[in-house]
Amino acid sequence: MVGGSVPVFDEIILSTALMNQVISFDEVSGILVCQAGCVLEKLSQFVQERNFIMPLDLGAKGSCHIGGNVATNAGGLRFLRYGSLRGTVLGLEVVLADGTILNCLTSLRKDNTGYDLKQLFIGSEGTLGIITAVSILCPPQPKAVNVAFLGCPGFAEVLQTFTTCKGMLGEILSAFEFMDAECMQLVGQHLHLASPVQDSPFYILVETSGSNAGHDAEKLGSFLEQALSSGLVTDGTMATDHRKVQALWALRERITEALSHDGYVYKYDISLPVERFYDLVIDLRARLGLQAKHVVGYGHLGDGNLHLNVTAEAFSEALLGALEPYVYVWTAEQRGSVSAEHGLGFKKRDVLGYSKPPKAVQLMRQLKTLLDPKGILNPYKTLPAQA
Amino acid sequence: MVGGSVPVFDEIILSTALMNQVISFDEVSGILVCQAGCVLEKLSQFVQERNFIMPLDLGAKGSCHIGGNVATNAGGLRFLRYGSLRGTVLGLEVVLADGTILNCLTSLRKDNTGYDLKQLFIGSEGTLGIITAVSILCPPQPKAVNVAFLGCPGFAEVLQTFTTCKGMLGEILSAFEFMDAECMQLVGQHLHLASPVQDSPFYILVETSGSNAGHDAEKLGSFLEQALSSGLVTDGTMATDHRKVQALWALRERITEALSHDGYVYKYDISLPVERFYDLVIDLRARLGLQAKHVVGYGHLGDGNLHLNVTAEAFSEALLGALEPYVYVWTAEQRGSVSAEHGLGFKKRDVLGYSKPPKAVQLMRQLKTLLDPKGILNPYKTLPAQA
Repeated sequence: MVGGSVPVFDEIILSTALMNQVISFDEVSGILVCQAGCVLEKLSQFVQERNFIMPLDLGAKGSCHIGGNVATNAGGLRFLRYGSLRGTVLGLEVVLADGTILNCLTSLRKDNTGYDLKQLFIGSEGTLGIITAVSILCPPQPKAVNVAFLGCPGFAEVLQTFTTCKGMLGEILSAFEFMDAECMQLVGQHLHLASPVQDSPFYILVETSGSNAGHDAEKLGSFLEQALSSGLVTDGTMATDHRKVQALWALRERITEALSHDGYVYKYDISLPVERFYDLVIDLRARLGLQAKHVVGYGHLGDGNLHLNVTAEAFSEALLGALEPYVYVWTAEQRGSVSAEHGLGFKKRDVLGYSKPPKAVQLMRQLKTLLDPKGILNPYKTLPAQA
Repeated sequence: MVGGSVPVFDEIILSTALMNQVISFDEVSGILVCQAGCVLEKLSQFVQERNFIMPLDLGAKGSCHIGGNVATNAGGLRFLRYGSLRGTVLGLEVVLADGTILNCLTSLRKDNTGYDLKQLFIGSEGTLGIITAVSILCPPQPKAVNVAFLGCPGFAEVLQTFTTCKGMLGEILSAFEFMDAECMQLVGQHLHLASPVQDSPFYILVETSGSNAGHDAEKLGSFLEQALSSGLVTDGTMATDHRKVQALWALRERITEALSHDGYVYKYDISLPVERFYDLVIDLRARLGLQAKHVVGYGHLGDGNLHLNVTAEAFSEALLGALEPYVYVWTAEQRGSVSAEHGLGFKKRDVLGYSKPPKAVQLMRQLKTLLDPKGILNPYKTLPAQA
């Protein structure tokens, strides 16, 4: 998305694909220790056979490596429930720029001995060291997964539905995703997926994961009844069957694919306070007018993470100029993040200053100099180009 | 516990007690932003009035400041359910050694713009900067809290009960604490608390927190029935009433107090793989023989965190010599942590090497030099004294 792993000039490419072994798995604690080149989906299968799941899941699971997931602090679809990799990653083995191995590969839930060095490498996109092994905490596999798909009359109702949902579903809520009417129109037009509910300005996908199918269905049913009878939601459907669950998820997960059929796509991945979450989309539609084919908003509402995408027939400098730095300035004014989960990589490194103050950028440079004095680790990435 | 906040030689003491204001609270997301001197219990009351809870809770809640909780990466009683402060703390404002303010006080669940600098200050015990404000994610208040107190015939059964418990209680499990028979004997002898179940080699306290009282009681009841009928547990009692819940928790929470009435106490707070969790206690009893009055094991089993305490009539160098470095070497051989949640402070800074390799200690010293070149921030703490 941001070219964090793409060589741009004179880099040497390093592959960890052959470092694909599970080192250990503890069936009491659920702690997995493995090499960095393990593919996420293979790890998922491995732990599922032992009644656990990986604490993260993403569309790219079939090809992405766990080392890369950690290096980019990947978010994804299980973030709302299982939290950040900063909490679930328990240890790392890292090769430093001078070739020495930093072994912090402990498999303990708690360790307060000195500074937590592994955090330096989580999310630093390979610019401070090369992750070679990972220790990670896997949650028990939920016995039941249910999905509800809802139509909502306005964005205020989307937010109220979220609050109601957190109260009534509590600990079993595992995803709260939203998409707007234009997203639904695009998945219909380009992928021939039909909406399972009547046309609405907004759609919500709620997922529950729990340990008791009966209890979970009862909670989700009561929530749905409450949301419908109070008018927060105008239409809704519920799925417990795996195939129907997958079909409902496809509406949300395949938006990116539908957008790619619509023309050139300008992509933004931002964090905003949920109250202002959708204002930027409305604002941009007015600002861009007929310059854009579509301005759409969707994403992980439960995490405050908006995917804002704009399509046009072809790339145009004029449209880019209307979008940037406007989107970044707007986000900065709300104290949002200009990169919620995708990182900065090569393409976005120069926008760091919109989300972090100069003192923070200075300290980041000092850390880079400390850990990689010759600048040999993933150069040209993450930190802004120097004047 | 480790003298992390105690001045030892020529320090200037800095108090944040007057920095006790809540800055903001978002009732949709549950994100609290407050000054560092807010007392944890006051914050708990504040967010509970809004149907949220703090993601951490500890015995010292009536006096401890949130800034100190973050600076020491406090664990406590809600860790099993809500995880580490490394995941729940979303932003920090920190004053650096040169007096500049590092403002990373964002209130976003996701932010992948550059390195996550706030992690440097979480758990660094004030040695890299002074935390002045905190942004933290509060979970919704559970509608029901239930506790079961169980007697277990052996440590293997304690571990099997934990696995059964995770499977049957899943997402509502909020604490899994254990104590041995000597702990129960001491709370009986010194505090006159009676065991609610028949005498057993081990006792377990299981707490659930959930959004539906009926569902939760049903899950806990089924678990208890299964644990009793399979012989994993020989006796058990359950509480849903607040007063009885408190009474059961008191048996576990007041062990420290009971120990203090028993004589001089040698305290260790270690993380171990759960399978080897209790072997150290058995091993030490054999090693110390009549030198010790009591050798007891209790703690946060669900987090792999053992509190190992040894009592004697008075302090003796000979007993200390029998304990140290033996306990640290034993822990290091299991790749455990010699300080799970208490930190290193002044008393334990020289044992860092038992849990971290030389390269890691070297990098910690480099970070200290980078952020505090004159060594003015909480000197003599965390990092080992230099030769």
